[in-house]
Amino acid sequence: MTVPPPPAAPRFEPRDPHWADKVRASFARQSVMKLIGAELADIRPGWCEIRLPYRDDLCQQHGFFHAGITTTVVDSAGGYAGYSLMPDGSSVLSVEFKINLLAPADGELLIATGEVVKPGKNLVISRGDVYVVKGMKTTHCAMMQQTLVTMHGKTDNEGDRK
Amino acid sequence: MTVPPPPAAPRFEPRDPHWADKVRASFARQSVMKLIGAELADIRPGWCEIRLPYRDDLCQQHGFFHAGITTTVVDSAGGYAGYSLMPDGSSVLSVEFKINLLAPADGELLIATGEVVKPGKNLVISRGDVYVVKGMKTTHCAMMQQTLVTMHGKTDNEGDRK
Amino acid sequence: MTVPPPPAAPRFEPRDPHWADKVRASFARQSVMKLIGAELADIRPGWCEIRLPYRDDLCQQHGFFHAGITTTVVDSAGGYAGYSLMPDGSSVLSVEFKINLLAPADGELLIATGEVVKPGKNLVISRGDVYVVKGMKTTHCAMMQQTLVTMHGKTDNEGDRK
Amino acid sequence: MTVPPPPAAPRFEPRDPHWADKVRASFARQSVMKLIGAELADIRPGWCEIRLPYRDDLCQQHGFFHAGITTTVVDSAGGYAGYSLMPDGSSVLSVEFKINLLAPADGELLIATGEVVKPGKNLVISRGDVYVVKGMKTTHCAMMQQTLVTMHGKTDNEGDRK
Repeated sequence: MTVPPPPAAPRFEPRDPHWADKVRASFARQSVMKLIGAELADIRPGWCEIRLPYRDDLCQQHGFFHAGITTTVVDSAGGYAGYSLMPDGSSVLSVEFKINLLAPADGELLIATGEVVKPGKNLVISRGDVYVVKGMKTTHCAMMQQTLVTMHGKTDNEGDRK
Repeated sequence: MTVPPPPAAPRFEPRDPHWADKVRASFARQSVMKLIGAELADIRPGWCEIRLPYRDDLCQQHGFFHAGITTTVVDSAGGYAGYSLMPDGSSVLSVEFKINLLAPADGELLIATGEVVKPGKNLVISRGDVYVVKGMKTTHCAMMQQTLVTMHGKTDNEGDRK
Repeated sequence: MTVPPPPAAPRFEPRDPHWADKVRASFARQSVMKLIGAELADIRPGWCEIRLPYRDDLCQQHGFFHAGITTTVVDSAGGYAGYSLMPDGSSVLSVEFKINLLAPADGELLIATGEVVKPGKNLVISRGDVYVVKGMKTTHCAMMQQTLVTMHGKTDNEGDRK
Repeated sequence: MTVPPPPAAPRFEPRDPHWADKVRASFARQSVMKLIGAELADIRPGWCEIRLPYRDDLCQQHGFFHAGITTTVVDSAGGYAGYSLMPDGSSVLSVEFKINLLAPADGELLIATGEVVKPGKNLVISRGDVYVVKGMKTTHCAMMQQTLVTMHGKTDNEGDRK
């Protein structure tokens, strides 16, 4: 299989003209992305892709990507898909998500995509997929549903840990 | 609040006399636990606790533990609770889980507990909780439900990535 | 096993003095409860129990309660646990839930309990359990996690279908 | 929006030549489908559609389809999508599912579709969607992820309630 491309045309209209910049700035503040080596590969209105190359310190007991690491990248992909549609002066939090691990995440690269399904004023519902690439083979290894909440009146770099 | 203690008596009987050793050995093979600094704090039949001290490279954009890191430790806590009850010569995989993030994971220490609810022959259902400790205050910050599968006839250190 | 009793003391304070009456009135408006024969057995602040006797028109292909019927009663149990804590002049909606079916729902009676875990101002997180009674035996047959939203400024009998 | 059509070509090969007949026979044995008035509208290998016309005894407190009823039809749609791919002499059970309720199920007709994502030998992972039709308008009102288990060596009409 191949990884599905981003939608030809965005399904949703962003409300913040700086949607792409604010997503990139927020991603850069997620220190765990630097720790694990994840990169923001693409951002569109209501859609996001994050890539994570294999490292042998990201694994579970069999040497595959740990389910928590798979979750870390797809939670952020879904979250930034949602954040791209949120108004200026707000930030995003994950309320909950559910993930099915479809196949062992055995390969050199994880590709996580997130897309908004329902952009509500407060609650945004998204879904995500993770693909693992091993040589010439790409495998759909995880599928997620997620609920996000818009934190109105709280910008993404306010309210930080002190 | 305080973190609930382990059950006074185990609810389930382990089938493998080496249940504690095999869990510790498997945890030691999860390289991501070393990367993030997580420790196996306690293991009982059908119950597990993992602790993770705060580091500023484990965070989301506001400087709290990233939801994916919270998930990483509670997925392993639930998984090892299940693995402790599995027979000799088998290993454990997460089929799926769902997590509600109840409060920002803002604090110095995460404590994740996992417990088996239904130990089936093949499928094991577990649940988990995560608490975050900040000074004198402990907050229940996440709650999880999880489905595990027993990989019969495949020991925990077989079938590794090559 | 036996069905766990309601908490000895409520964990949460209701904000509406008419919390019990409004839950009973709302339950009475859920026409599907009458169709299937479900009864509101008990309501406490942040806690609810619904009972459903077996009928042979509530079944899946093996003659057990259909998973959707199990879900119907536990979704309402969790929802009314949440609604009991919501302020006057508001109503409740389920945002999402996840249910694990732990055992076949084979018996004469389903007992569904719901309890609030985190009563936020807008979002309320609850969990639920379902037990099936067959003769002298009680079996834990389902476990649920649920996200509810408070619809502020919209009473429970407004906004009806026209 | 409109309801997406079934896949132009099936993604998966059925292993049982009587896949369509056995799904129809099993659906006919789900007594709850008759109670609520649901119909099996279409079955393909790995794909299923169930339709449910509005009745005022299927509702929650605002007169919309109850979330449990929405769940009942989409759980069966996903389950029969999975069952269509299972071998002769087996039956299907839902292990767990998670549903996001995207919009009030306000309309004259529910259309639930289920599709297999990963057809494993024992575990089958599927997803589902529910659409509600009101006059000329169709709304995506629910989205589900589901885990099914193949009960090998137990036909669909064995093991019934006694």
